[in-house]
Amino acid sequence: MKPMSKTTTVGFLGGTGIEGKGLALRLARVGVPVSIGSRSRERAREVSRELNSQLGRELIGAAENREMIGASEIVILTIPFEQAPAAIDAYRDCFRPATILVDATVPVKFLSGQVRLIELPEGSSSESLAKRLPPGIPLVAAFKTIPAHVLADLRAALECDVFVCSDSAAAKTKIMELIRLVPDLRPVDVGGLEAAGTLERMSALAIGINRRYRINSARFRVVGL
Amino acid sequence: MKPMSKTTTVGFLGGTGIEGKGLALRLARVGVPVSIGSRSRERAREVSRELNSQLGRELIGAAENREMIGASEIVILTIPFEQAPAAIDAYRDCFRPATILVDATVPVKFLSGQVRLIELPEGSSSESLAKRLPPGIPLVAAFKTIPAHVLADLRAALECDVFVCSDSAAAKTKIMELIRLVPDLRPVDVGGLEAAGTLERMSALAIGINRRYRINSARFRVVGL
Repeated sequence: MKPMSKTTTVGFLGGTGIEGKGLALRLARVGVPVSIGSRSRERAREVSRELNSQLGRELIGAAENREMIGASEIVILTIPFEQAPAAIDAYRDCFRPATILVDATVPVKFLSGQVRLIELPEGSSSESLAKRLPPGIPLVAAFKTIPAHVLADLRAALECDVFVCSDSAAAKTKIMELIRLVPDLRPVDVGGLEAAGTLERMSALAIGINRRYRINSARFRVVGL
Repeated sequence: MKPMSKTTTVGFLGGTGIEGKGLALRLARVGVPVSIGSRSRERAREVSRELNSQLGRELIGAAENREMIGASEIVILTIPFEQAPAAIDAYRDCFRPATILVDATVPVKFLSGQVRLIELPEGSSSESLAKRLPPGIPLVAAFKTIPAHVLADLRAALECDVFVCSDSAAAKTKIMELIRLVPDLRPVDVGGLEAAGTLERMSALAIGINRRYRINSARFRVVGL
């Protein structure tokens, strides 16, 4: 596996939602080649135009999802959790060997104003998606606990940690290097993929804090590290 | 329920371990009447002498567990998780009406150098202990994610959040007021007792971070709140 560099191409499966847009902006701004994927090439182009105009430079590309996946070394999954299994199944043959899938999905639902975690038999959304990937495509869980709209607001300092876990040490290292390129994000290694369930619960906890305190930006930082 | 004040008596069930000692020191230092409980009155006295000498003042009392519980408005459970159910069963008749039990236990075990959460049918140690309490004694989960040795080192600034959850809103409010008395701790309301499982998993995550980064002080702070 090649080490992370600023020429590693990062594609977004679900790049037209707020989380994908936010991460794409943050990475493009520090020089990472980024491509927005969508089922519709026109929709992807529309979003990349919007983001490039925000950046004031033509930094972000656009492609139909299959093309984007085939051209990316890292694919970040930022679609809603409910759509993720079907998307993986639909695109599993497009991945190049050793492409890394980064899963940022959080399995939550809202019931009468309360956030609820959806319990999955595998223990987490990440572990359930990892099973659907072709052999040789490692999955890394990351970005689960960072509020999408904070990512998307380039004036906001993130000042928080990105908890990263994977059963592939090499893939995890590469994603941690990618995260380190963003100045106010710190990657924190939380072990194997079995930790993803904790990250998903923390994300639900943060959503609950947001609702209880009438804010929308709760995220975590490890003190003492 | 009386509001929290600096005259509310706080007892420690398991006050002779490092977590109980640390919390007792932190609370006594800001003027809260604190009592160390132990099965042995002599052992409790020994520990209170040690802590008072550290504080340079006679602030911390000592009692056999039954006496301590009978004289406390708040009882903080800081014994190891495995011993907690038997301790609750043994002392359930000693609680005064409306005494609050604060559960700081974390159900983890260590397997070949890895920390593992012990899965409980109730979802968390707190929910399992709450079932064993007499009616009218509310349980509040708190302090689960704060490393014991950081609490016990009075030179260390804590600078972290205490996540607090309970099915009794009044008891939760009172424990949050208690936590606010400690200058560098911030209570964060994370809802009903069902959130305790997330806090216990976060504690296991922090222990894993400690091992991976060769530190012993990982704890959490919410950014954006």
